[in-house]
Amino acid sequence: MNESQLRGLLNQVSAGELPPDQALERLRTLPFAEAGHVLADTHRMIRQGFPEAVYAEGKTPAQTFDALSALVAAHGCALATRVRPEMAASLQQRFPTGVYDGGSRLYRVGKMSSSFPSASVAVVCAGTSDLPVAEEASQTLEFAGVPVKRITDVGVAGLHRLLSRLEELRAASIVIAVAGMEGALPSVLGGLVAAPVIAVPTSVGYGANLHGLSALLGMLNSCASGLAVVNIDNGFGAALAALRMLNMQPKA
Amino acid sequence: MNESQLRGLLNQVSAGELPPDQALERLRTLPFAEAGHVLADTHRMIRQGFPEAVYAEGKTPAQTFDALSALVAAHGCALATRVRPEMAASLQQRFPTGVYDGGSRLYRVGKMSSSFPSASVAVVCAGTSDLPVAEEASQTLEFAGVPVKRITDVGVAGLHRLLSRLEELRAASIVIAVAGMEGALPSVLGGLVAAPVIAVPTSVGYGANLHGLSALLGMLNSCASGLAVVNIDNGFGAALAALRMLNMQPKA
Amino acid sequence: MNESQLRGLLNQVSAGELPPDQALERLRTLPFAEAGHVLADTHRMIRQGFPEAVYAEGKTPAQTFDALSALVAAHGCALATRVRPEMAASLQQRFPTGVYDGGSRLYRVGKMSSSFPSASVAVVCAGTSDLPVAEEASQTLEFAGVPVKRITDVGVAGLHRLLSRLEELRAASIVIAVAGMEGALPSVLGGLVAAPVIAVPTSVGYGANLHGLSALLGMLNSCASGLAVVNIDNGFGAALAALRMLNMQPKA
Amino acid sequence: MNESQLRGLLNQVSAGELPPDQALERLRTLPFAEAGHVLADTHRMIRQGFPEAVYAEGKTPAQTFDALSALVAAHGCALATRVRPEMAASLQQRFPTGVYDGGSRLYRVGKMSSSFPSASVAVVCAGTSDLPVAEEASQTLEFAGVPVKRITDVGVAGLHRLLSRLEELRAASIVIAVAGMEGALPSVLGGLVAAPVIAVPTSVGYGANLHGLSALLGMLNSCASGLAVVNIDNGFGAALAALRMLNMQPKA
Amino acid sequence: MNESQLRGLLNQVSAGELPPDQALERLRTLPFAEAGHVLADTHRMIRQGFPEAVYAEGKTPAQTFDALSALVAAHGCALATRVRPEMAASLQQRFPTGVYDGGSRLYRVGKMSSSFPSASVAVVCAGTSDLPVAEEASQTLEFAGVPVKRITDVGVAGLHRLLSRLEELRAASIVIAVAGMEGALPSVLGGLVAAPVIAVPTSVGYGANLHGLSALLGMLNSCASGLAVVNIDNGFGAALAALRMLNMQPKA
Amino acid sequence: MNESQLRGLLNQVSAGELPPDQALERLRTLPFAEAGHVLADTHRMIRQGFPEAVYAEGKTPAQTFDALSALVAAHGCALATRVRPEMAASLQQRFPTGVYDGGSRLYRVGKMSSSFPSASVAVVCAGTSDLPVAEEASQTLEFAGVPVKRITDVGVAGLHRLLSRLEELRAASIVIAVAGMEGALPSVLGGLVAAPVIAVPTSVGYGANLHGLSALLGMLNSCASGLAVVNIDNGFGAALAALRMLNMQPKA
Amino acid sequence: MNESQLRGLLNQVSAGELPPDQALERLRTLPFAEAGHVLADTHRMIRQGFPEAVYAEGKTPAQTFDALSALVAAHGCALATRVRPEMAASLQQRFPTGVYDGGSRLYRVGKMSSSFPSASVAVVCAGTSDLPVAEEASQTLEFAGVPVKRITDVGVAGLHRLLSRLEELRAASIVIAVAGMEGALPSVLGGLVAAPVIAVPTSVGYGANLHGLSALLGMLNSCASGLAVVNIDNGFGAALAALRMLNMQPKA
Amino acid sequence: MNESQLRGLLNQVSAGELPPDQALERLRTLPFAEAGHVLADTHRMIRQGFPEAVYAEGKTPAQTFDALSALVAAHGCALATRVRPEMAASLQQRFPTGVYDGGSRLYRVGKMSSSFPSASVAVVCAGTSDLPVAEEASQTLEFAGVPVKRITDVGVAGLHRLLSRLEELRAASIVIAVAGMEGALPSVLGGLVAAPVIAVPTSVGYGANLHGLSALLGMLNSCASGLAVVNIDNGFGAALAALRMLNMQPKA
Repeated sequence: MNESQLRGLLNQVSAGELPPDQALERLRTLPFAEAGHVLADTHRMIRQGFPEAVYAEGKTPAQTFDALSALVAAHGCALATRVRPEMAASLQQRFPTGVYDGGSRLYRVGKMSSSFPSASVAVVCAGTSDLPVAEEASQTLEFAGVPVKRITDVGVAGLHRLLSRLEELRAASIVIAVAGMEGALPSVLGGLVAAPVIAVPTSVGYGANLHGLSALLGMLNSCASGLAVVNIDNGFGAALAALRMLNMQPKA
Repeated sequence: MNESQLRGLLNQVSAGELPPDQALERLRTLPFAEAGHVLADTHRMIRQGFPEAVYAEGKTPAQTFDALSALVAAHGCALATRVRPEMAASLQQRFPTGVYDGGSRLYRVGKMSSSFPSASVAVVCAGTSDLPVAEEASQTLEFAGVPVKRITDVGVAGLHRLLSRLEELRAASIVIAVAGMEGALPSVLGGLVAAPVIAVPTSVGYGANLHGLSALLGMLNSCASGLAVVNIDNGFGAALAALRMLNMQPKA
Repeated sequence: MNESQLRGLLNQVSAGELPPDQALERLRTLPFAEAGHVLADTHRMIRQGFPEAVYAEGKTPAQTFDALSALVAAHGCALATRVRPEMAASLQQRFPTGVYDGGSRLYRVGKMSSSFPSASVAVVCAGTSDLPVAEEASQTLEFAGVPVKRITDVGVAGLHRLLSRLEELRAASIVIAVAGMEGALPSVLGGLVAAPVIAVPTSVGYGANLHGLSALLGMLNSCASGLAVVNIDNGFGAALAALRMLNMQPKA
Repeated sequence: MNESQLRGLLNQVSAGELPPDQALERLRTLPFAEAGHVLADTHRMIRQGFPEAVYAEGKTPAQTFDALSALVAAHGCALATRVRPEMAASLQQRFPTGVYDGGSRLYRVGKMSSSFPSASVAVVCAGTSDLPVAEEASQTLEFAGVPVKRITDVGVAGLHRLLSRLEELRAASIVIAVAGMEGALPSVLGGLVAAPVIAVPTSVGYGANLHGLSALLGMLNSCASGLAVVNIDNGFGAALAALRMLNMQPKA
Repeated sequence: MNESQLRGLLNQVSAGELPPDQALERLRTLPFAEAGHVLADTHRMIRQGFPEAVYAEGKTPAQTFDALSALVAAHGCALATRVRPEMAASLQQRFPTGVYDGGSRLYRVGKMSSSFPSASVAVVCAGTSDLPVAEEASQTLEFAGVPVKRITDVGVAGLHRLLSRLEELRAASIVIAVAGMEGALPSVLGGLVAAPVIAVPTSVGYGANLHGLSALLGMLNSCASGLAVVNIDNGFGAALAALRMLNMQPKA
Repeated sequence: MNESQLRGLLNQVSAGELPPDQALERLRTLPFAEAGHVLADTHRMIRQGFPEAVYAEGKTPAQTFDALSALVAAHGCALATRVRPEMAASLQQRFPTGVYDGGSRLYRVGKMSSSFPSASVAVVCAGTSDLPVAEEASQTLEFAGVPVKRITDVGVAGLHRLLSRLEELRAASIVIAVAGMEGALPSVLGGLVAAPVIAVPTSVGYGANLHGLSALLGMLNSCASGLAVVNIDNGFGAALAALRMLNMQPKA
Repeated sequence: MNESQLRGLLNQVSAGELPPDQALERLRTLPFAEAGHVLADTHRMIRQGFPEAVYAEGKTPAQTFDALSALVAAHGCALATRVRPEMAASLQQRFPTGVYDGGSRLYRVGKMSSSFPSASVAVVCAGTSDLPVAEEASQTLEFAGVPVKRITDVGVAGLHRLLSRLEELRAASIVIAVAGMEGALPSVLGGLVAAPVIAVPTSVGYGANLHGLSALLGMLNSCASGLAVVNIDNGFGAALAALRMLNMQPKA
Repeated sequence: MNESQLRGLLNQVSAGELPPDQALERLRTLPFAEAGHVLADTHRMIRQGFPEAVYAEGKTPAQTFDALSALVAAHGCALATRVRPEMAASLQQRFPTGVYDGGSRLYRVGKMSSSFPSASVAVVCAGTSDLPVAEEASQTLEFAGVPVKRITDVGVAGLHRLLSRLEELRAASIVIAVAGMEGALPSVLGGLVAAPVIAVPTSVGYGANLHGLSALLGMLNSCASGLAVVNIDNGFGAALAALRMLNMQPKA
């Protein structure tokens, strides 16, 4: 209930068109609904620019299905992350239009109505091992209507390959840099582009890699200033960080 | 050597005004100069939107002075971080117009010519202990011409104070959330605003705080999606991450 | 042997009804029996308010059955934690009245005779992933006769849902807050209620979550004062901590 | 604004006694004031049973003085923790009735009006090294009107001393167990008493003690069920956890 | 070649009974043979009081069989640790007299000829979960002819059970204390007995147990002085540490 | 485009055979091609002395096959590491001349044409558990034409065995020391030989071994100066470090 | 009260010489006195073979003096560890016969009356940096009457020095091996001697030494079986572990 | 004593020129001297190509002086690392020709007689903060006669500076890469040069840098193959690793 509606209600009471009791009834739910309004902004999509996604790890297919159904009902589209192939097969029987990608383990129904035609996010990684995380970021962005430029196989130990993609990198609105092992790729990229760089450590590697901690620490301690880091293997989080940034710009 | 200069050179050769040998001599240095151009974009400010800052920790006053002088010569302004009071006093004798802030330990000479009149960054923290890091972020942004909204004393254990500042938070283009201890502030903020949230863990706390690691881990594992995390106590890095985002928008 | 029994014995010796040798024999075991009395208080239920529970992880069904049988014999009821479904099926054949809950992995035979009608423990968690741990706490409490109020789906990134349950939270004698990822829920709750808050970190999450350490550290470093923390995934321990508190109050 | 006030206001509008514009003005602030009421409960003392304490570490004497003054103005008493002797001397000049304890580093002005005559908290520790943390807990409780029983020099490597205090331990409403090194004291106590046991690890020790982490881990992994653990060296937090529990009981 | 042999050789040369060339030939190999003597002491059993045992983890049955065979050939007996049931079945076909214990996962062929009739080692643990490690220690000792006293189910949270076994504990030459979780058992035992206490942390526990690190840290930081700690789950190492001590005494 | 080509182009322009516009077009792409030349040195084999190897962990057989095929096409030989037996069987159907070694999990097609007849690398390890890592190093070196001397079963707890191999160790150009557990072997070797010692920690061990971290830390902190350490279980990396050193010498 | 005293008392009652009431009074205190006897064994020296030592770190000179005085009164001698020079000077004014050693930071008054003439403990270390810890062990042993053989400068990177001391090492009843950095010395010694080896990691080193953790981990994971490890820098603990072992043998 | 000397001795005995007793006396010391020969190679310089250096941290000036004096007596030159300015001043009074470098904290007397005229080691680092460690490496090499090429200010976030030094990097026999923060420099260099790359992590940085662990982990997990890593801040160790490699080549 916004201010003009409230003024209208009071005018009705003043004019004798609305008895105080009925006005009271309508106002009684006001504080909480208002608080709801203040806090919830009707729904999360308005609040954060993205509908809640379903994190399927540790959920049963039934739980995931229920959660997706609720989101589809509310928003007309839905996304689940970390979906295993068996669960995807099970979901597919329920959502005829659902799409599963085995690499990124994303399952999506429909697509958000937003679009960012003038933007472009470069999702960069060093090799095939980092691809699942990179694809989680890329396809989440595409689900939200953001054009993605994939740049693969550009590890810092082979600078010539990285530098040969420099023009594409500089053309991007935002760079998402996905790297395991020592996680040096965002440092190098951060020195080459002025755009926001979102660094995603992956758990790729072995030994003292510590399940991605070495890459995470490398990115947090980068000598390139202004990098933004997300959790290990969190391609989805990187995509949402990018979306928060793109929502600062006027959409098409 | 840009394209028109190169065309001019070739025209001179074609016109017989420049012998091939002399042209060759001038072109011989081209690849590296060009590579310099491709890679360096003349200077870091263009490349990253911010002149190199001087990290004064572990430097002598003389080293810091030299570095600042070079930056002032190149850009007309300069910033040093982690400057101890004694060093600031020493610098002040050399830079009459320099300004030192004891809280953030920033020393700055002049100010960048950039300005972001329509933008606003909210720098949010829980209490006085986090203020030095928050001020490092705030004043770095102000040095770059970005309006800053400071919101202090809004820890998550006192939600009513945080919620009473909701309108200001929602008005911000970007939110920088500075927190020590359990580092929960960015999680709560991430759920309340759609803007980019840059999370800065601080080393405030004791015991199992582990010099800020508990806050860092909390932020990386946030249940609010799309947070961007920087290193512990790295207010400067948060400011630069914000600048990278703001540079996506047309400046005034 | 209490004082009156001892006086009786000495009177018998004095009256010549009991020869010193036989009295000596009965006194010889006194110090240890007495020590036993001092230390053991007859049995653990009196000492700690709860019969020993069987931790089934790493035990064979036979070992678990033996342990449960001994407890049933002593107390008329018994509880086992971390019971896998196969073991539960095996136990069920032996305890016709036993009840297994697959979510919490608790297996219980009977129920304690205690009851706490005027008390209420709110068991709060953020989502479906934390439910197994929350249920371990809830059902352990119910086994002990404590009324439980379950409050689910109230993560800190969606404050409006949490705040809409505020009245229920404030009505609780004790709040058990179960959270994974950054573990911020107890901090927020600690600021909203005056009751004891028992914080249970869960291993829910991935990457830098470190199997629940990030949530554990977050809770230990909470900016809300007076939180009591238990081990990762230790819903049973949280329930017993609550029981220790409730036993401070006069039972019904 | 409660329901009857709201009904009154609407009746005034209906009766023409209050113009809609003025009614609107009074209702405009309603949602936030209501939210304030819902969330803030007037002040933190009501919400959490204890006024905010000042954590003096890293604060200037002036900052600490300001914070204490505000609390004294609001509650008639105030407490600061981690106060160094120099700061205490400075504070003493401003608060003639202030009291400083060098061992616990607590500085207090006045005393809370609450009292818990029938309760008793046993604060137990192994030796002189743990005393500062134990005293922080004890004196915070005394500031809040809780009777404290101090039991010192009862390390687990000298069980006879601990067992000789068993009666006192069993008489306590709550036991706070303070221990460094391996932190085994709460495990042993947890098996001896039915009361709530709040375990406080201290940073006392050296080598692989890891600044208290060994004691903290020991307490979290205790084989005694239902222990409640607080952060390393956090005597204040232990006292507040105890207060939350005592507030469950009817005060005198 | 000892001194008298060397003197004899020189006398032979001096007496013309041995030509210098033949003497040289015999001396040529001296340094290495001597070094071998100095270093190797013929074989490891003399050097360390125990034949090399086979660590079967990660070995194939064939590799384990070969290693055991070589030891049997050299010493008439052999021991393998961490033997899985399948491997034991395979070994059994080759060693008709071999004995496998599924709890400790020890496989032994024969028995050492040493005996320590007047010694006794108490192997103490808290519960059934620690039994495999305790049995690895007990049976290794028995293989070496050392009488073992097993004391089980004496966790520190139930002191009365531990104290009721005090006489047996004090009768032991050496106490091996096996404990998981917080690892407090050796601290309590170290205060009750004057004998050497060998502390064995186990990986029993969960959550912040960190695969036995919490118990290990607890034992290293014990407030009881003079504890000797071995690696996590290393019952075999504890037995060998005990054997080194027992070899200080005259054997029967 | 090398200097003579450039001179030819300028001569053409000077002679009027090439219009400036067309020359410009050809020069426009020069900087990048040149940068490619400067950075890439045609291919990685020239740059680093070894063709890229395929890290098969986490790759599908098809991905591994494609990568190997590309390398074979470019260099006439290829090597894959961490190849599981099933994948090896699959590869074998595609590469009739491929060779798989189950111990080291290396799969190789052909062999490099390089040879180092006068060099010798000693690959030393303590026991059978370290063999897979040692073999990964040995066979990678042999693939590159380097003679390898394998020295096994020389753990530091049996010095006499190690010292009996001293001559072979001192004859080696480079020593690769592979060790798990405490990782002391390289320290002892570093004191015995003047050659480069490359230390490879393995994850062999249990308990506080921490998956090889204890060996890694031991090697990094060695009291023998000048050891070069590689990642845990990284036999391939050790071989490449040795190759970098051998390439300093004139090849045969 | 022993059995014969108890029998006498009962005979007195039976004979009418002692009224039951008085007998009761004397028996009333029996259980606790007996329990005291059972648990305390009169004093710690009997229980653990060594009087309690004063850990002076973090104590005031007055506290240390009081503790030492009590020990001197009870045992005629006393030992304090980690005594800083200033405190030693202060203590010296109170104990004219006290002796301070600046290297080990031990302060001792008198000497225990025990002696172990036929025993010998070799205290071995690699260099001057480990000497303070080695001396803490050596002088604690000498305080208890144990002959000590010091062997210094025998790091594993210089095996010839270590091997030249082999006879002395093999003559020792017990070997205490003190080492920082990678902590490999006990592994090598464990393979050379059959005696008990007590391993003491020191915090000597830098970088990835982690304040002694690398040496500690190395010792726990030693490939030499049967090592007994104590806490980092804990020379005193090593001495007491040795004393526990020596007390197994008949004293002179 | 070599073979011909031994033959001569035996001939003397045979000829009656040397009595067997005197021969025995000379042979008595043979085994150990021989062992000394086998193990020690006369002295460490021959064994490891470098005289022992004095690690001055934690030593008194007197201890450092004594150690240096012994080395000068043996080798005519000596080097001490980690020398504080006060100690250097003290040493200077004893060694008139000694030279101290405040940056690297190296103190040297004289210079080794070795020289490597055709070799060149590039010591590369990113900035002024890494210079002390880089200089420790550089000056240790120069002390040993190795020409050093210093390349500074080439962090990976400013690739153009690094690439502009490519020719110098490729001309080096060995590259020592010194880096703090994320430690990415060796990864990039490892991809650009074929020479051995010795990676030295430094403790430069803050926050999650963990005193150099982030750089260390980055280097160990490098995607560039064949890097050799030394301990944090261990410039001296890097120089000795380089010397071991250079000693593989024929010296001038």
